[in-house]
Amino acid sequence: MRPDTLGVIGLGAIGGSVAWQAARNGVRRILGFSPQPKEAVAAVRAGAITEAAPSARFVADHADLVVIAAPPVATLRLIDRLAPRLRAGSVWCTDVASVKQPVTKVASDLGLQRFAGSHPFAGTHLSGFAAAVPDRFRDVLVYVTPIGDDDTAAREIAHFWSSVLEAAPVIAGAAEHDELAAWTSHLPQAVASALATAIAEAGPRGVTYGSGARDTTRLAASNIEMWRDVLLLNRSAVLRTLDRYEETLGALRRALACGSPDDLAAWLRAGARWRRRLGK
Amino acid sequence: MRPDTLGVIGLGAIGGSVAWQAARNGVRRILGFSPQPKEAVAAVRAGAITEAAPSARFVADHADLVVIAAPPVATLRLIDRLAPRLRAGSVWCTDVASVKQPVTKVASDLGLQRFAGSHPFAGTHLSGFAAAVPDRFRDVLVYVTPIGDDDTAAREIAHFWSSVLEAAPVIAGAAEHDELAAWTSHLPQAVASALATAIAEAGPRGVTYGSGARDTTRLAASNIEMWRDVLLLNRSAVLRTLDRYEETLGALRRALACGSPDDLAAWLRAGARWRRRLGK
Repeated sequence: MRPDTLGVIGLGAIGGSVAWQAARNGVRRILGFSPQPKEAVAAVRAGAITEAAPSARFVADHADLVVIAAPPVATLRLIDRLAPRLRAGSVWCTDVASVKQPVTKVASDLGLQRFAGSHPFAGTHLSGFAAAVPDRFRDVLVYVTPIGDDDTAAREIAHFWSSVLEAAPVIAGAAEHDELAAWTSHLPQAVASALATAIAEAGPRGVTYGSGARDTTRLAASNIEMWRDVLLLNRSAVLRTLDRYEETLGALRRALACGSPDDLAAWLRAGARWRRRLGK
Repeated sequence: MRPDTLGVIGLGAIGGSVAWQAARNGVRRILGFSPQPKEAVAAVRAGAITEAAPSARFVADHADLVVIAAPPVATLRLIDRLAPRLRAGSVWCTDVASVKQPVTKVASDLGLQRFAGSHPFAGTHLSGFAAAVPDRFRDVLVYVTPIGDDDTAAREIAHFWSSVLEAAPVIAGAAEHDELAAWTSHLPQAVASALATAIAEAGPRGVTYGSGARDTTRLAASNIEMWRDVLLLNRSAVLRTLDRYEETLGALRRALACGSPDDLAAWLRAGARWRRRLGK
């Protein structure tokens, strides 16, 4: 579907970009709501939205498609709060949380027919409308997760991502998504945050950190509320990947303790091969 | 000191850049040796060196200053092999290994008067002369580590870094350097390699990794031989930082297991604060 009136709830780095790129690509009416009024003002000024809506409910009352772009727990609450409107009318709805089973469960429990979850792989460690850009989703992978067996809504939402936002949507089950995302996104976040936290608590003061340490810890600067929700909501999958990661650290520790150059080189080589294949 | 004839042994990302930036900044004769002849050919073609030397010994016989830019264990062997020449003549010498106590110990044991260690904080995960650039050291922090109490050689080498390579040298003890570098460089490398290795061994196949996972694992693509040496040669300090890092992962695990949003937010906040202060 291509909305005549797009509604975006949450105007941060992701929601702001959804609105802005839709505006660039010809959606004529874009209602935006942010709990922080200055974000809505910034979005109007940039031309990302055509109207600052007075409430989330107003957005749901007037849009053909509502994109909820809030941290995961806030997203669950919004779906619940807007359910009467989303159930009654002809409005489509999706969200952008990076954990999908809790979202699809809530939507399913509430009997929403026109809902599918989304997770665009376009994360950034920066927050707020200041981090929005008008081309964030071009060629970006977006998982779209149906509720139950009927994928009608998922196909409509996927079409929105491709036709309006130039993204590359893939329809996948929420459970499959959450398992994948634990590896591709949530574990890297945990690892980067743990490194930053360990350095913050026990590292030397007033010294210089080079590009390597900066790259490895960059994700630690990400939105705290969002990641608190994601890690908790996907905690069983995240804990499984953490188990495997800690085993790998154990192998490093053994190679160091034994002073074995060959074991250590083999350990480094496995990761190097994978990372070099991944490219830039 | 400013050399009339600079000698560089090893023409990879660091050695190649030392030669190239010195050439740009007016050092007229630059002898370069690489065990891989094609690297020396590439360096001559780029104008980074004026002559491809036939051996490391030839470099030490003809240069006023020799920069050894090899992986750490190879560096230790080269210092040992070139010691008769380095001891006898008036040639200055430094190296660029990112672990300094083993290097200064060997140089001290061999009685080298004109040697100080160096560690430019200009690492890259790319290798070979193809990764050399003619301005790598501009404003870059370089630790220069004296042998014992006499810092005459360290002051001369520091002057080379600042006057010829536009870097910002700091003279520090080798032990102090190695303790710092375990936190600022070696632990981030271990963390990035462990994540890449865990994903390589147990992660899902054929899926997309976004910019976050790419940043967090970038260092894993680094030179294997170099990092094998660095991690082993600085293993007691590296193991201490790993202890602290694993404690931090344990705190994450507890917050997840208890399902505590407040504990998890506090954990994320400590790292986020540190990383946001660090800047880009």
